[in-house]
Amino acid sequence: MRGSLRAGAFSLTDARRYNPGMTDATDKASLDALRAELAIANRILVSQGVLDAFGHVSVRHPARGDRFLLARNMAPASVTAADVLEFDLDGTPVNPDAPKPYLERFIHGEILRSRPDAMAVVHSHSPAVIPFSVVRGVPLCAVSHMGSFLGTDTPIFEIRDTAGDASDLLIRDNALGRALAGSLGRNPAVLMRGHGVTVVGATLREAVFRAVYTEFNARIQADALRLGPVTALTAGEAAASAATNASQIDRAWNVWKDQVAPA
Amino acid sequence: MRGSLRAGAFSLTDARRYNPGMTDATDKASLDALRAELAIANRILVSQGVLDAFGHVSVRHPARGDRFLLARNMAPASVTAADVLEFDLDGTPVNPDAPKPYLERFIHGEILRSRPDAMAVVHSHSPAVIPFSVVRGVPLCAVSHMGSFLGTDTPIFEIRDTAGDASDLLIRDNALGRALAGSLGRNPAVLMRGHGVTVVGATLREAVFRAVYTEFNARIQADALRLGPVTALTAGEAAASAATNASQIDRAWNVWKDQVAPA
Amino acid sequence: MRGSLRAGAFSLTDARRYNPGMTDATDKASLDALRAELAIANRILVSQGVLDAFGHVSVRHPARGDRFLLARNMAPASVTAADVLEFDLDGTPVNPDAPKPYLERFIHGEILRSRPDAMAVVHSHSPAVIPFSVVRGVPLCAVSHMGSFLGTDTPIFEIRDTAGDASDLLIRDNALGRALAGSLGRNPAVLMRGHGVTVVGATLREAVFRAVYTEFNARIQADALRLGPVTALTAGEAAASAATNASQIDRAWNVWKDQVAPA
Amino acid sequence: MRGSLRAGAFSLTDARRYNPGMTDATDKASLDALRAELAIANRILVSQGVLDAFGHVSVRHPARGDRFLLARNMAPASVTAADVLEFDLDGTPVNPDAPKPYLERFIHGEILRSRPDAMAVVHSHSPAVIPFSVVRGVPLCAVSHMGSFLGTDTPIFEIRDTAGDASDLLIRDNALGRALAGSLGRNPAVLMRGHGVTVVGATLREAVFRAVYTEFNARIQADALRLGPVTALTAGEAAASAATNASQIDRAWNVWKDQVAPA
Repeated sequence: MRGSLRAGAFSLTDARRYNPGMTDATDKASLDALRAELAIANRILVSQGVLDAFGHVSVRHPARGDRFLLARNMAPASVTAADVLEFDLDGTPVNPDAPKPYLERFIHGEILRSRPDAMAVVHSHSPAVIPFSVVRGVPLCAVSHMGSFLGTDTPIFEIRDTAGDASDLLIRDNALGRALAGSLGRNPAVLMRGHGVTVVGATLREAVFRAVYTEFNARIQADALRLGPVTALTAGEAAASAATNASQIDRAWNVWKDQVAPA
Repeated sequence: MRGSLRAGAFSLTDARRYNPGMTDATDKASLDALRAELAIANRILVSQGVLDAFGHVSVRHPARGDRFLLARNMAPASVTAADVLEFDLDGTPVNPDAPKPYLERFIHGEILRSRPDAMAVVHSHSPAVIPFSVVRGVPLCAVSHMGSFLGTDTPIFEIRDTAGDASDLLIRDNALGRALAGSLGRNPAVLMRGHGVTVVGATLREAVFRAVYTEFNARIQADALRLGPVTALTAGEAAASAATNASQIDRAWNVWKDQVAPA
Repeated sequence: MRGSLRAGAFSLTDARRYNPGMTDATDKASLDALRAELAIANRILVSQGVLDAFGHVSVRHPARGDRFLLARNMAPASVTAADVLEFDLDGTPVNPDAPKPYLERFIHGEILRSRPDAMAVVHSHSPAVIPFSVVRGVPLCAVSHMGSFLGTDTPIFEIRDTAGDASDLLIRDNALGRALAGSLGRNPAVLMRGHGVTVVGATLREAVFRAVYTEFNARIQADALRLGPVTALTAGEAAASAATNASQIDRAWNVWKDQVAPA
Repeated sequence: MRGSLRAGAFSLTDARRYNPGMTDATDKASLDALRAELAIANRILVSQGVLDAFGHVSVRHPARGDRFLLARNMAPASVTAADVLEFDLDGTPVNPDAPKPYLERFIHGEILRSRPDAMAVVHSHSPAVIPFSVVRGVPLCAVSHMGSFLGTDTPIFEIRDTAGDASDLLIRDNALGRALAGSLGRNPAVLMRGHGVTVVGATLREAVFRAVYTEFNARIQADALRLGPVTALTAGEAAASAATNASQIDRAWNVWKDQVAPA
């Protein structure tokens, strides 16, 4: 059984419950390896067409569940391990001399706070997904078993409900981050109206896998809807398939990794 | 005239009738060549957009009609001749020390059992084809002469009929493989609802050719359906065109082979 | 004023009238240059997505209007000048020892016979164009000024009218070639139901230009039709634009040529 | 507050008001740098799929607001700094010995005359945008925050209103350029029916950014319209988002620049 949603109530105990490998201390070598992995994640997401010059991906600190790693403000295709910064869940850089961070880092902090089961977050302007964010009544859902993690519905975050009807659509503070996390709830993904999508994973690789196959599933769903009424996966099929696919993530990761330049 | 369907009644006599080149003994050199050809088939299917990190292609053993060759559990883009395993039609590796096989090897074994005329099987998540698997009443059929082998209809395998409505959609045992083979019947292809497509061929190259042009035809059919009512090939046109095209397979194979790295 | 259509009545006088540069004798060097240009045309058409492993392009012999040049039966991406054969308008190779020709060479011979104004012919399975060949009532026409040569309508050749409803859809003899030429009439292009498209040009480069922009225009027209009622070019706009664009062909040719390997 | 539209009333005072960096004299080094930047802009627009063998991009002269820089008549993928010519706003080359200019240079001169706030102009046959130019009643507008500069509507220039119904659709003189500038008005972009789109920017990089994301937004809008009724950005959202995005242009430019060959 998954934990209930308690936005704002993140604790290290929760994070450890979901992530048994988490320890109090992380040696420098393993943290460096995670930074390098995050750089590869950035490049994969560009190579797979999920990110362009914009978008970002974060991973929770392995020993400090109340911190996360995220690149400095830059294009994802160029991120290297040296560009990765450490933040607390408020989105404040741990190092006061850190270079300029992403404006929308609050997406990552607030979602990681409200979702102790999530260890990584991808925010993108995935092109086949955005159409589902601006049309009500056609919920993005699993129509392909590769998108089974999406389940039977994907919530849409309407920023107007929080920021009014003249915002710049960006998640520029913690209040907006919390509102987004509220729309996400216990789901693996949340559409952001007129903006993009944010996806979480129990590992960095799972978040990347889900981001890629959210785009894949969206394209297939849109194509199918043009043919006629669509038979989507049932909740039971989606759950069973997602459980099976979780063991296949490394295969996809390794293929995608081979296609990007070494970090 | 093609043989009648006798699922579970495969015999070497049948296989030899359909494949006159089959002999009792195959020297190591020709088997090695077939393994190398299978590796190339994997790479071509990735290069042509039919496979991504998932999907697989098999070929019947040239001397042992009750066996087939299939890569070990791995990404198709990386398959080499050394990764090819030998299985019996139950999907059991001949070598008890074989590395981990594909979960869905039962697709290949059961179809090769029920279809003595088939020498090769491609299973994919071909992106333009999946939409036709989730929409009833719009059968995938030959609208382009390059897809003529598809004929006037393509069956859809609904796994719920066998596995209930909470399966993971995968063909994970022989019973599901037999059910899939039953839906395939004497057709060249069977759609798998919410999952993908499986295509057979009288040769490995024919199976690859059909997999590529199933994707091509699906895209054209979907585009045409958005314009208006579509004139598909008649059964007579499909049969005549498929017979003609069968002689053109090597040309396409050689072009596609030139585009992939040597195995 | 363009000459009237007289299928079967081709004469050198006609060809010279339309092609003042045509002479009685062509030195070997200029013929070799034309063969090299034809090889480049093949590669450009593959590179631009008009041809795949199939399709072909011909050019009329510069000195012998009753002959044409066409590659031997092979994949267009590999054609070199040495692969180019010479045919009479019946599709018979001039050299009795010529290697195997394309089955559908009658497309080229009969169209060049019926269209003295045409110096080159491209036959393709252009993917965005085929949908327009299988849907009646939505004529492919100029919606973009780059496709202005298409004018207000493109005829569809229905092979059933000549070959019955169980043909293999191919133009496999002179009678079918004449029927296709009849459907083409004085148009720049003719759709072939369930098969592809054939385009002519006053020069080899014009035929290539038209083949590429027929695909471009088809994609835009299909996309526009999904938005709502489309304003196409008037006949006057199409004619004026086509006249202007005719002077721009070399620019496109040179860009496309730079993108393909040297022949 | 932005200046009112006064076509034909351009003055250096206006240009300086909008572009405080503009000086009376520009040293040769900075002008050479701008020519090199314009060459890169050409290559980026090709690489990003906005231009093919056709289309062009101009930038206003930094010291002479009544002049602009534009490549000679050539394919944009090949433009180098040495190919850049200087024109007055009538489209007359400053150098009487200049090589052949683009036929449609009047697009640039007349728009730069009527829009002192604009420092650069991109004219393209952007493939996802053209469909919106030929369908009335489905205005191209911001549905993605990356296309927020488009606002709530994009005007369509109907050349028939000025040139009658048998023109070649090109902007071949100053009168047509003025008519186009009139349709553009104070907007960032104007669709040209059956032809393409012209986009302006306060800097060269902004014009390139807008051209790329006009294509992106058009594709998403078309895909969304096929799903159902679309929630577009409000005027307030569009304005706020456009203001935010203006600070992100260099990031995209640098990514795109890295993808093209050095000029």
